[in-house]
Amino acid sequence: MSKLSTESYKGVRDFYPKDKFIQNHIFKKLRETVERFGYVEYDASILESAELYKAKTGEEIVNEQTYTFTDRGGREVTLRPEMTPTIARMIAAQERELAFPLRWYSIPNLFRYEKPQRGRLREHWQLNVDLFGVESNEADTEVITIAYSILKHLGASDDAFIIRINNRKTINALYDSFNLSEDERYKVSKLIDKKNKISKEAFSRTLSDIITTEKGSLLEQILSSSEHLITHLGAEHPAIKDTREIIKKLSEQNITNVVFDPTLMRGFDYYTGVVFELFDTNPENSRSLFGGGRYDDLLDIFGARKIPAVGFGMGDVTAKDFLEVHDLLPQYTSSTQVHICTLTTLQKPAAHALARTLRNANINVSLDISNKKIGDQIRYATRQHIPYVIVIGEDEVKTEIYSLKNLDTGEEKKLTASEIISLFTTHA
Amino acid sequence: MSKLSTESYKGVRDFYPKDKFIQNHIFKKLRETVERFGYVEYDASILESAELYKAKTGEEIVNEQTYTFTDRGGREVTLRPEMTPTIARMIAAQERELAFPLRWYSIPNLFRYEKPQRGRLREHWQLNVDLFGVESNEADTEVITIAYSILKHLGASDDAFIIRINNRKTINALYDSFNLSEDERYKVSKLIDKKNKISKEAFSRTLSDIITTEKGSLLEQILSSSEHLITHLGAEHPAIKDTREIIKKLSEQNITNVVFDPTLMRGFDYYTGVVFELFDTNPENSRSLFGGGRYDDLLDIFGARKIPAVGFGMGDVTAKDFLEVHDLLPQYTSSTQVHICTLTTLQKPAAHALARTLRNANINVSLDISNKKIGDQIRYATRQHIPYVIVIGEDEVKTEIYSLKNLDTGEEKKLTASEIISLFTTHA
Repeated sequence: MSKLSTESYKGVRDFYPKDKFIQNHIFKKLRETVERFGYVEYDASILESAELYKAKTGEEIVNEQTYTFTDRGGREVTLRPEMTPTIARMIAAQERELAFPLRWYSIPNLFRYEKPQRGRLREHWQLNVDLFGVESNEADTEVITIAYSILKHLGASDDAFIIRINNRKTINALYDSFNLSEDERYKVSKLIDKKNKISKEAFSRTLSDIITTEKGSLLEQILSSSEHLITHLGAEHPAIKDTREIIKKLSEQNITNVVFDPTLMRGFDYYTGVVFELFDTNPENSRSLFGGGRYDDLLDIFGARKIPAVGFGMGDVTAKDFLEVHDLLPQYTSSTQVHICTLTTLQKPAAHALARTLRNANINVSLDISNKKIGDQIRYATRQHIPYVIVIGEDEVKTEIYSLKNLDTGEEKKLTASEIISLFTTHA
Repeated sequence: MSKLSTESYKGVRDFYPKDKFIQNHIFKKLRETVERFGYVEYDASILESAELYKAKTGEEIVNEQTYTFTDRGGREVTLRPEMTPTIARMIAAQERELAFPLRWYSIPNLFRYEKPQRGRLREHWQLNVDLFGVESNEADTEVITIAYSILKHLGASDDAFIIRINNRKTINALYDSFNLSEDERYKVSKLIDKKNKISKEAFSRTLSDIITTEKGSLLEQILSSSEHLITHLGAEHPAIKDTREIIKKLSEQNITNVVFDPTLMRGFDYYTGVVFELFDTNPENSRSLFGGGRYDDLLDIFGARKIPAVGFGMGDVTAKDFLEVHDLLPQYTSSTQVHICTLTTLQKPAAHALARTLRNANINVSLDISNKKIGDQIRYATRQHIPYVIVIGEDEVKTEIYSLKNLDTGEEKKLTASEIISLFTTHA
């Protein structure tokens, strides 16, 4: 028989226990933060009808950038590339039964058919946080506060990142003031969206190609700072007021690493109001970490009533890169707390009994069944990153007093089973 | 624009918060149990090379019963139908770096292309528990003990289920004693595997068609009880001794709802020794809940050294059905613990401040931003199954004493923020 490859499929990851430990650490922090704000978890299958994406995204993108295939029943199926269409579908389906506002979150895995590169794999997990049913900017403020709180809960300091905020309505008002056509708006938005990836010269040149040199340089000047934009549209413009009010409300929550950035686009598909992103200030990882915005029209495609919505997504690959660069990743330690070793097989019944007692007290215990020499049993615990060992010999069976050894410090304590239990219970 | 369907793809599930609550409850119990026994979590992508399944399963089954498609790079990709080939691949890849024995678990989602029916969907989640590197039956005993402990931890009583145990080696010894050919063994095994789904007459008739009436009725008689099998093979036969020793070791752990069932097959693909299953004794749900066994040869396909292995899988759909039939499902309650309401918008700053204080003490708090009438705000909390509300009016802002109302009992307590915190901390 020919030897089979042990490699994973291209662009996806195997999670060995050490990798899963990191992912679990990140997911735990995400869950804790969003649940603190009253968000409840939902989920769905990765399999969705291809129709769901064609409606908003266009046939071309669905076919080129997603995993889409035809099942044997003739159905066109897509491995979900994002969660927002799914949550919109689920809410539209039960619109009448659900009590709004809805605060929902999920950590789905998503699929993209593209060349794997730093921060972008073919499969990644993404926290999705969405608030449905509130029109006022209290909703936008809450969602941005959660995004901020996630990075804080992961250990980041305020100067590790900055929150950029913009508003699709100010962009539209700006385009209105320049009398831009639909086609010009689309091209200019696309250009602004990739502003940071091209040179200033290339940007100006392309802009003047779209809307004349004169208009282009004026637009560029207005976009260069929020002050210019405010002067241009007027401080009383509703979208300007809305955006500044959110920034003020955030500062009332002591969130001050915030800028009003008129060039922030966040794509330009379904956003209808505020858009925002969290940007890494570390020069080694200078890029957008994650973001979101307001999308009030998404449920239209299901013929449901209009339900205002605001939310964001945060990918696990980007999150891990951020934590790595800022030295915030935890050291691996096994979920197993104690490894029980036995000098000879005669102590097995006592070892089993002790393991049962500790497990009943919610302590995670592995029992040595390798039947190797005692030194090897202890070395094994070290290699598995299990923090404590107990060795059971004749004496321990007689006295029921066990020596609990901390493999990190080498410290040993003579304890009864119930003393071991209280030691672990106090630590937890 | 035509209206898009809000239905999910055929044979998969949407998890609304109430559904996700149930799944989270089950997963939490599974994780807790397996971690108590020292198992650590791993994971992998659902995308695998189709090759991985063809090696052991045969091309036909891969094409007919799995989701397999060709990606644009010409790779044949399968949505994993089971986790065992993946864990075998991962272990073979790092065989030299890993410290054995390995105790690993995962809760992957798996895909099968088949007609959806009770207990079998196109996508389901399955706990996988595996122990690699131990040849002795201490490993089999441990894994069966975990399977038992999972059902107990989910709330089941000992009489709700029975553990059936058999051994592929006793089956093989039995076939040897009948001088059966490879083809006869395959057909007889297949027939025994579906014994409970056909009548006794149909079973006997088909059996005599395969191996003559005389041999058939003798075989049937031997299979009718473990005592007959033991008499036939001899109590000193290694596979008989091994099986009975496991049953004895389980009884030393107070696990006594166990039978030695010579007809238990559990499929017959990669198992090489002990096989077992947990069977629901409730007449309304009389069926196999889950099971597993020993598979010592699986890493062969990667050209890796032989590593003994034993494990089992437990599906979430079956688990949920079991809990439903035995009335063990918990009542839904939101992960949000308190909903803070405000009489007027004037109390918003105080409400935000209280929410922050409670959240900093790890309490999950939602803040009303609907700006509806106070009665509606409280009704909303009830509909969301949030157990407590706090209403903030002028008095509360002044006194900083809040009335915490239990929406289930109607009971109200006047408390300071720190009293609220200690109330929730003691409850948890």
